[in-house]
This record gives sequence, C-alpha cells and structure tokens, in this order.
Amino acid sequence: MKIALDAKNMPARWYNITPDLDFDVPPMMSSSGYPLSYHDLEPLAPSAIIDQELEMEKRDIPIPREIQALYSEWRPTPLYRAERLENSLETPAHIFYKYEGYSPSGSHEMNTAVVQAYYAAQEENVKRIVTATGNGEWGASLAIACNYFGIQCQVYMVRSSYEEKSYGRYVMEILGAEVIPSPSQKTRTGQKILAQNPDSPGSLSIALSEAFEEAITRDDVKFSWGTVMNHVILHQTVTGLEAQSQMHQAGANPDLIICAVGGGSGLGGLAFPFYQERGRGMRIIAVETAAAPSLSKGRYAYDYGDTEGLFPLLKMYTLGHSFVPPGIRAGGMRYHGISPLVSALYREKQIEAQSYTQHKAFEAAITFARTEGLIPSPEASYAVAAVIDEALACKQTKEQKNILFLLDGNSNLDLAVFKDFVEGAIEDQPFLGESVQAALEKLPKVAQP
Amino acid sequence: MKIALDAKNMPARWYNITPDLDFDVPPMMSSSGYPLSYHDLEPLAPSAIIDQELEMEKRDIPIPREIQALYSEWRPTPLYRAERLENSLETPAHIFYKYEGYSPSGSHEMNTAVVQAYYAAQEENVKRIVTATGNGEWGASLAIACNYFGIQCQVYMVRSSYEEKSYGRYVMEILGAEVIPSPSQKTRTGQKILAQNPDSPGSLSIALSEAFEEAITRDDVKFSWGTVMNHVILHQTVTGLEAQSQMHQAGANPDLIICAVGGGSGLGGLAFPFYQERGRGMRIIAVETAAAPSLSKGRYAYDYGDTEGLFPLLKMYTLGHSFVPPGIRAGGMRYHGISPLVSALYREKQIEAQSYTQHKAFEAAITFARTEGLIPSPEASYAVAAVIDEALACKQTKEQKNILFLLDGNSNLDLAVFKDFVEGAIEDQPFLGESVQAALEKLPKVAQP
Repeated sequence: MKIALDAKNMPARWYNITPDLDFDVPPMMSSSGYPLSYHDLEPLAPSAIIDQELEMEKRDIPIPREIQALYSEWRPTPLYRAERLENSLETPAHIFYKYEGYSPSGSHEMNTAVVQAYYAAQEENVKRIVTATGNGEWGASLAIACNYFGIQCQVYMVRSSYEEKSYGRYVMEILGAEVIPSPSQKTRTGQKILAQNPDSPGSLSIALSEAFEEAITRDDVKFSWGTVMNHVILHQTVTGLEAQSQMHQAGANPDLIICAVGGGSGLGGLAFPFYQERGRGMRIIAVETAAAPSLSKGRYAYDYGDTEGLFPLLKMYTLGHSFVPPGIRAGGMRYHGISPLVSALYREKQIEAQSYTQHKAFEAAITFARTEGLIPSPEASYAVAAVIDEALACKQTKEQKNILFLLDGNSNLDLAVFKDFVEGAIEDQPFLGESVQAALEKLPKVAQP
Repeated sequence: MKIALDAKNMPARWYNITPDLDFDVPPMMSSSGYPLSYHDLEPLAPSAIIDQELEMEKRDIPIPREIQALYSEWRPTPLYRAERLENSLETPAHIFYKYEGYSPSGSHEMNTAVVQAYYAAQEENVKRIVTATGNGEWGASLAIACNYFGIQCQVYMVRSSYEEKSYGRYVMEILGAEVIPSPSQKTRTGQKILAQNPDSPGSLSIALSEAFEEAITRDDVKFSWGTVMNHVILHQTVTGLEAQSQMHQAGANPDLIICAVGGGSGLGGLAFPFYQERGRGMRIIAVETAAAPSLSKGRYAYDYGDTEGLFPLLKMYTLGHSFVPPGIRAGGMRYHGISPLVSALYREKQIEAQSYTQHKAFEAAITFARTEGLIPSPEASYAVAAVIDEALACKQTKEQKNILFLLDGNSNLDLAVFKDFVEGAIEDQPFLGESVQAALEKLPKVAQP
C-alpha cells in the first residue's frame, strides 16, 4: 500500500542534525593535525557545500528553488506499507519502506548529486566535477545531475568494475561522462600504484585518491562525495523528512528505523529527521556486511577516507584505510569507514549496529521481491534481512511494532549479482580480522588521542 | 517539468475504442474460417478477459477495485514536459512524455499483467499462467503480477535470449517464475522444431506456440498476451486516460501523438483515449523499425500470431508469421504483425506510420538521455527519433506544436544494447523484402477476401 505525499508538502528545508546533538562531533583534521577550516576545503568543493559541511548552528537549511524544482521531477518518492511481506511472515509488525528506486538513476544518490552539480555550476570557472565510483550507481547519478547544469562529469571507476561485465560504465558513457579506469596514468597516485603493480585491479579508495588529486591540482575542477560527509547526509534528509510526513499520514510512529550502511548517508538521511523521537524508545539500527563491519568491529579513530591519505582525516569507525575488504557484491558496503556523524551517534550508543552475511541478505531480498514485487539493491538487501528478523521477533513476542526502512534504489546496475546468486556462484566472505588488525596498525599517528 | 496527477483523479474505467469507430474491425477467425466466439476462447483465457476482448458496445469498462488498488502502488505515473530536450533542439515545439518506467518491472507491461493475473486468480481451478517472452520484460511483469495473487507463472523464453547475457531470465527466476528456454521438449511444437533443428535459437513466434499449446492442453493453465489483443490495449488505456488529464492540467492539447509499435498496445493505450480529438487536426504516428515495418510494408490480411499457427487468425498488417526478422535489438519491435485495432485504424488512414533504423533510434535515445536524464527503452528510442525529427521540423516552420509520446519503460534489462551501441557493435539491419515476400506467400488461405 502506497502512502503518497502531496507535492505541496515536499520539504523546503533539509535537516541538519548537528545543533540537536547533546555531544560534540570531532572535526575534520588535516594530516598534520589541525582542525580544517573553510579555506582548507576551498580547492575541493563549491563554497555553499563547504558551508553546509561545517554548519554547526542552523538546524534547517533552505533547499534552493532550483533544487526543489529538480527534486519534484521524481519526488516526493513513495512510502510503502509492505503488507504482502507482513502477511507472508505472519507478523503483527507493520513494515514500512521509503522507496528511492523511482529516480532517474534508480538510486537515492540523485538526492545529493543534483545539489552538488548545482552548486558547482554556480561557481565561476568551474567546468567539471570529478568523483570516484565502484559499480557506477553514484557515477551515473552525478552524470545525470551534471547534464542538468551543463557541466562536465569525470569519473574514476575501479578498474575491476570497469573491465567486468558492469553496465555502470556504459550508463555513464551514454550519459556523456568521461569514465577512467583506476588506477590510471592520469594522476601521480595512479602512476605510483601502477609502477608497483601494473595489473592492479584498483579499489574505491584508490579511485578516490585519484579523483581527489585531480580536483586539488586544477582550478576549474571540484570534487564530489557520494556519501560519508555531513553535507551528503544533509541532502539525503529529504528522504527522512518526507517519510516523517508519510508516517504521520499513516498514523504510525516508527519503533525501529533500519538502514544498510556503506558510508552512512542513507541511514543519516532517513533516520536523522526522526532523531528527536528516540525519547519514546525508538531504536535506530545500522546494518553492515559481516565482511566489512566498520561499526561492529572497527576502531573509533581519525583515519583517511582514501588509500593515499590525500583526504582530510575523519574521526570515524574504521577498519583502516589500507584494509582491502573481501569481494562481497554490495559495492557500497565495502568501504572501510562510516560517516563521522553516524560514527559519533554509534559511539554515544544512540544507534545500534547489526551485521549480516551476503547469503542472508540476498535470501531476504528474494523473499522481499516475491512479495513486494521490487528487487532491492544489494545494499538494501542487508536492511531487508534485518527487517525480516525483527518482524519475526515481533511474531514471537506478539508486538505490533512499526518498522521503517530505506529501500535506497532498484537493482538495475546490480542484476549480475542476483544472476550469480541464482546460479549459486556467491560465496560468503569471512571477516578478515587479521587484515583489519594490520590496517589498524597503519592508522595515521597524528590527531589520535 | 513533471505534471503530476492527483491520486484521486486516477481513472476508474478503461476506455474501449470499438464503439467509437465509424468502421468495423474484422473479427478473430478460426483457422477453418469462422469468426471466433466466447466459447472458442474459453480454454485460453479467464472469462472476464474474453468478455473484454470481444466487447463491442460498452465504451467505459470499470477497473476492479483490487486493480485500482494495485495500480495505485505505482500510478498515476508522471507526465513530463521535456524542456531540457526542447532547449537543446532550440525548437518552439512543446514535447511531453508519459513515463511508465517508474513501475515495479520498469515497464508499462505491468498495466495489463496485474489485470490478467487478477482475473486468472478469480477463476476456479486456475493455478498457473503461461506466456512467452523475448528478453524478459513482459515475463518479469507477469511474474510480479502472479506473485501478487499467489498463482504460478511459467514463461517460455526465446532460447537465444535465455542463453545470452540477458538478465531477464534471472529477474524472472528471482521473482519465482519457471523459465523454460524455447524451443523445449515440453511441448509437441518444441519437439517438432528441435527434431528439425536441435540447435534452433528459437523465436518469439515459436515461444508463443509453445505457451499456447501448454494453455490449451491443460485445464488449470491460462495463456497470457503481452500485447496485440484488444483487451491488452484496453488495460493500457490507463496511460492515455491519465495523460489526457495531465495534458489538460498543462493547458495543452496534443497536436501529435507518437508511439513506437511492436504489437501496438503501447500506442493503443496512449492514443486511443484521444481518438475523438482527431477532429481538430491531431495526428497519431506509429513508429516502426525499418527492419520489420509491418504497417509500412506488410500486407493487411488474416494471419497467425505464432509460428505454428495455433493462434486464432487475426486481421492485421503482417510480414507473414513465418518471417524471421533480422536481429535488431529492440526485441519488442521484431514481431511480424500489429494489433488488429491499430491495423484497422491504419487501414482507414486514421493513424500514420514512420520507420527508423536502429542507429537513428539509439542516437536519439542518447540525445534524450543526456538532456532529460532517463535512458529510454530500446523500443521507445524509435519514438524519440520521430519526436526529435518532428520537433526539428517545427523549428523550420516556427510552429509551436504540442507533441506527446510514450516512454514505455526504463532500460534496465536492455543495458546490454546500449553497451553494444557505445562500443560500435550495432549494425543497421536492412529490410529483408524478399523474405517478407516469401512469408506473405505462406499466409493462411482461409478467411482471406
């Protein structure tokens, strides 16, 4: 059952959680150990983005009219009550999901892509946005957004994805983006890595380093983040704000908010607008992959966001920026860290973490697809696994909990994963504890307590 | 710019064009040459579907409440004004498109799939629906619909698609459908074809024969059509009825309605509700592939819908049921015939036909994707090519025409086509005039004038 939001009730402001927190979130640091200011970030990002990233005071940030107009091309997105799933589980729980698959790229990443492209296009002299992508969902979202504003889009794509059967590359090329397999000869980072290993398959952390280097060395290029950062979560709160109105319409307060976490922007976007409701016992659950469980098994420390350490230092739960996660198929879940905001909330025990293997996740996705009719993204599949377990727990306890989760996108670019799952070609990947230990040894020494 | 339709203005009735026609549409015939009655169709289809197929009197057919509820999970779908495309073409024309990609399967085929599954589930003893599919969009839509009503879905899939990189097979399997590569050993049709050619790659016409045979030989199985038939067009009029309200909201009367045609249900669904508006000079254009132009180069004759001639005879523009079209990549456009309703309107010069090569179509799709942000389905790409040409003609004549077209779905299952196009691996396919002549020689002799 769809709970539609009237277009006139679309949010006109994003929600910034920072002023509402009863603790301090440690700031970004330079690699030499001082807190970053506006000017340190200037070469990287448009000024409005930096302002949003550093905003500590204002709770409500107006959404520019131009962005409201673009959002309205696919928003408000539907909230669904998953009654067919509930019936098949015979649970008294009410399961709601916010569905972001009905966007141009099929992903919630459009919500921040259009904002970043808009602000970049506002800056004088900015001709191009550069970013890094795994299988291409983020890159495709940004490519669409760049076309809206007539600026170029350049994407460093993990070489193994570029060379595999991934359609993400072609989607980005169809959309006119320049797609560069990473590591490449275009950057010093890429050259260095290829000199050590000419056959390097690349990684998201390497691609991030290359994109970052490209941005800081050119005046007409800005870098774009797809997740992790405060401003990305800010833009994603449009999902939670809409969901709040829709849950209100449905007469249901969420008892549980469940979201898969890769970088954390999906969870922040959906759950933060409900933050004040924790008082009545609402729980927020971040669901990780058991193969890369940053919250559950990582260390809360300052770490780099990229392999080469070109990024600023972020205080986050991390498995170490040099950790190479096993080849699980939800690309968005393999990142070594988690957004500083989400990490700080976990540190304060204001959110919980659970982890699932990919088999459990894909089995849950199939149960969901066969009842609700939508094949979840591999990332959202982890959330679905946790939702089903919580709903079955309600069946035992006979509790009618309201469970809300994020279905962050469709499975367009990830159908190969489900093909492999159907064919039995997906192995569960163990948690590589020793590799994590080794990576944690290599955390930057500066700025640690 | 989205023109949203308020949920309370969703159509409660489908539109049946037959009573409004000022000419007679030749009826379905048996292969022995008599017009088919309700009882002839009983083994094939649920009774409500047969009633709708044969309905000659009633213009407005109520949409059952259960179907209205399901439609409302993804409907009303948006109508967009393609202002970014208009600007890039510098045309005074206003281009509108009805977008059906935001459905569970990503295709307009959901509109009829849910109805056919609903009526089948209403019948006593019906346990299963059987159908045929090319790359899987129709099969996936039907699989989702069958799950909604708890009945089984069995799909004969063209063997070459089954064995290729098509994700359609896996999507259907994830959704719980039984997918059988056709020709198969499960039917007499399949056995016969495999005896002649054990390596037969299959065709949609063969798969249709197998599915049809399965339905007529089993009491608990009904057949399901994805296009061509009157009742499928009836269900698809939900798109045109919504578009009519939305164009009205936008204060724009369409001067041109443009739609790609494979079997014709997309065109019938969008254009028929506007049928009475031809009086003010509105034109309806069916866009075919130059490789299989049934309207432009076929013969108006009684022909079978399938290779083996198990189907009833339909009076339609046909290239001959034994014609094997060249391997163009818009699977939905390769069918040898066109819906009897669309054919009759073309015969009466009430609609026009144009044809495009696949290169022109994919080039147009890329122009569209880079401005509007949505990658059209390969089928809709043909419509986009015609739309762009008409909009450029308006630029010459300085006319502000309102052009309305159908974007029937997203490109999820067809990204391989665009990959091949980007890589330059798609050749234009010539019209095989001699093969068509040979196939037209083999039209059934009965029932021809």
